[in-house]
Amino acid sequence: MSTTSHIPPQAPPDQGAVRVGHDDLTAFAAGVFAHRGLAPDRAAEAARALCHGDLAGPRSHGLANLTRLYLPLLDEGRADPAAEPRTVTDLGAAVLLDARRALGLWVASEAMDRAVERAGRHGVGLVSVRGATHLGCAGYHALRAVEHGMVGLVASNCGRQRIARPPGGAVTMLGTNPLSVAAPAGQHPPFLLDMSTTAAPTGRIRQAAREGHTLPEGLLCDDLGAPVTDPDAFDAGRAHLMWLGGREGRYKGFGLGLMVEVLAALVPGAGLGPHPDALTGDGGPSGRDDDIGFLVAAVAPDALREGAGEDAEELFGALLACPPTDRAEPVRYPGWHEYHRAGERRRGGVPLEAPLYAELAELAERTGLRVPPVQGAPR
Amino acid sequence: MSTTSHIPPQAPPDQGAVRVGHDDLTAFAAGVFAHRGLAPDRAAEAARALCHGDLAGPRSHGLANLTRLYLPLLDEGRADPAAEPRTVTDLGAAVLLDARRALGLWVASEAMDRAVERAGRHGVGLVSVRGATHLGCAGYHALRAVEHGMVGLVASNCGRQRIARPPGGAVTMLGTNPLSVAAPAGQHPPFLLDMSTTAAPTGRIRQAAREGHTLPEGLLCDDLGAPVTDPDAFDAGRAHLMWLGGREGRYKGFGLGLMVEVLAALVPGAGLGPHPDALTGDGGPSGRDDDIGFLVAAVAPDALREGAGEDAEELFGALLACPPTDRAEPVRYPGWHEYHRAGERRRGGVPLEAPLYAELAELAERTGLRVPPVQGAPR
Repeated sequence: MSTTSHIPPQAPPDQGAVRVGHDDLTAFAAGVFAHRGLAPDRAAEAARALCHGDLAGPRSHGLANLTRLYLPLLDEGRADPAAEPRTVTDLGAAVLLDARRALGLWVASEAMDRAVERAGRHGVGLVSVRGATHLGCAGYHALRAVEHGMVGLVASNCGRQRIARPPGGAVTMLGTNPLSVAAPAGQHPPFLLDMSTTAAPTGRIRQAAREGHTLPEGLLCDDLGAPVTDPDAFDAGRAHLMWLGGREGRYKGFGLGLMVEVLAALVPGAGLGPHPDALTGDGGPSGRDDDIGFLVAAVAPDALREGAGEDAEELFGALLACPPTDRAEPVRYPGWHEYHRAGERRRGGVPLEAPLYAELAELAERTGLRVPPVQGAPR
Repeated sequence: MSTTSHIPPQAPPDQGAVRVGHDDLTAFAAGVFAHRGLAPDRAAEAARALCHGDLAGPRSHGLANLTRLYLPLLDEGRADPAAEPRTVTDLGAAVLLDARRALGLWVASEAMDRAVERAGRHGVGLVSVRGATHLGCAGYHALRAVEHGMVGLVASNCGRQRIARPPGGAVTMLGTNPLSVAAPAGQHPPFLLDMSTTAAPTGRIRQAAREGHTLPEGLLCDDLGAPVTDPDAFDAGRAHLMWLGGREGRYKGFGLGLMVEVLAALVPGAGLGPHPDALTGDGGPSGRDDDIGFLVAAVAPDALREGAGEDAEELFGALLACPPTDRAEPVRYPGWHEYHRAGERRRGGVPLEAPLYAELAELAERTGLRVPPVQGAPR
């Protein structure tokens, strides 16, 4: 669960990758969701959210999760393709929504559109969601507010799935609890922070394991706190996720994870990681990511004052104009690389690793859909 | 500017410290503020906020800042003791407030009380503040929401004061941009995250310099990114504040700092760190902490649903019951130590280092106030 904030300026070369048109890819994913019973408009929305990971990053939250996460959720009945979310409480600026096991990929966007509408009237809009499932890249949903000149905030707990231990604790209690904030930046790419509150999301660990890469120090540690760089050690139970901030700052990362647990799950009454049930765990990951809670909020600067758009452009323009210490590496802010990468891939196609494309081809065969066509030959 | 999240279970021994009654201490600080022209109720509120640093931690944001920060602000006219904050926009759930150079110690609490009142009606209350001055411990103001069973959020930028460089940047662009969240925990101590988005607040660096301590690695680095542990190097311009997350996670810390800049300062139209003026800097700290912006928000779970209080008690109770890896170090969450420390000091007196007490005695003489009496002999 959750996403990474920083995507390096140089994405790794797409060795053995094929390129597929973004529209073809989202149409295919929408077809798969519709085949599983989602209404066409909901399927299309969920597909756009899912493919955002491949389009802008992080890949670990893109189509690779279709067969690993979303289809099993639907197949096991843990997500309901026909769910009709229910408004539990509506106070105008704040709404409590029970998603009733709707696909988080879709319902988080619905929630943001509602938060935006409320913020237009009240200056702030808060949609607190329980009973949800995995939302994909939190940043995709946060960015929807930017189209309306607003600041978008999205946070999600991981339901009852427990992956990370409290500092000094011997059993897992919390998920990776992602937090995302997006803001307009005038003519510059939108600001987009999209991060797990653990040092890394599990998707990044597992992607490194699939691809045979070693991890940098600071993401995993063993029972005694010593650094672990082998990504296979995580699922083997020999390593645990660290909190953002490392040893010195881990109470901040843990505190941010708890902040998300409180805002995203305690407020709406969703499944909680820290719960008496967690105490029976053996120290490794426990629980399932059912009954996930979201905080989805929008703040409308233009409803409060004039000139916010100009100020935003000046703010982010000043950052981009900051003299760099290395002239080859200009200063950027979170969201800049993702925006430019998405633009390039919208024009030139989305790279998919060959094994992932093979997965999609197999899925096409099973669902009777046409696999999205490859643009040019494999590189 | 800003505060630390984690205060070690064992506070350092108060060598050469005296103990002063909490009520005597706040009455003294209130007297000093009233002597500088604040109305008595505002002076008392500002004094309680200031003394919170000495009562619960962090000390770096307590009375040590009276002569270093707040009195100079008032003496130079950068803070106005008689300021009447002006409501610029009122949309019900969201309010934009111009503090007109009021003391942040007072106006941040006023803003939270208003946010709480709005959240009671609308589920969420947001008071966006510009034209403010330093608010002390952000957590003090966030905790006010907890008294009403609400979640409180407080974030502050540092006005135009620039202390931290963007990753890869050669000039300072942002402040330490603190973020605080407080939540009720039933019979357990309230959850309280109160952190700078930089690896440390400047107060912690300067306190170490005053006390002659070496810093741990990960807080300061030199121009080339190498770790620096000498706290004197910061004000000498030979070391810079690092972002939360260290080298691997610095884009997350930087992103959190920008999130605070956007929510606390861009939204209300306060002074911005990243601004064309910053580009003329020589690489070291620049600008002044005038026209600070705050985000002050409250969320009322009880307005949205039943049972939030019981769920909160279960959540934080489960964390406290988590088996520890070291039986001598039980699992705690941010806010637990601060709560117990504050209770102990309310009963047994607040320790003040001898040089700080001497400062207060001198200040008493200058203002014609009575210095708060020492409880027992110096240790």
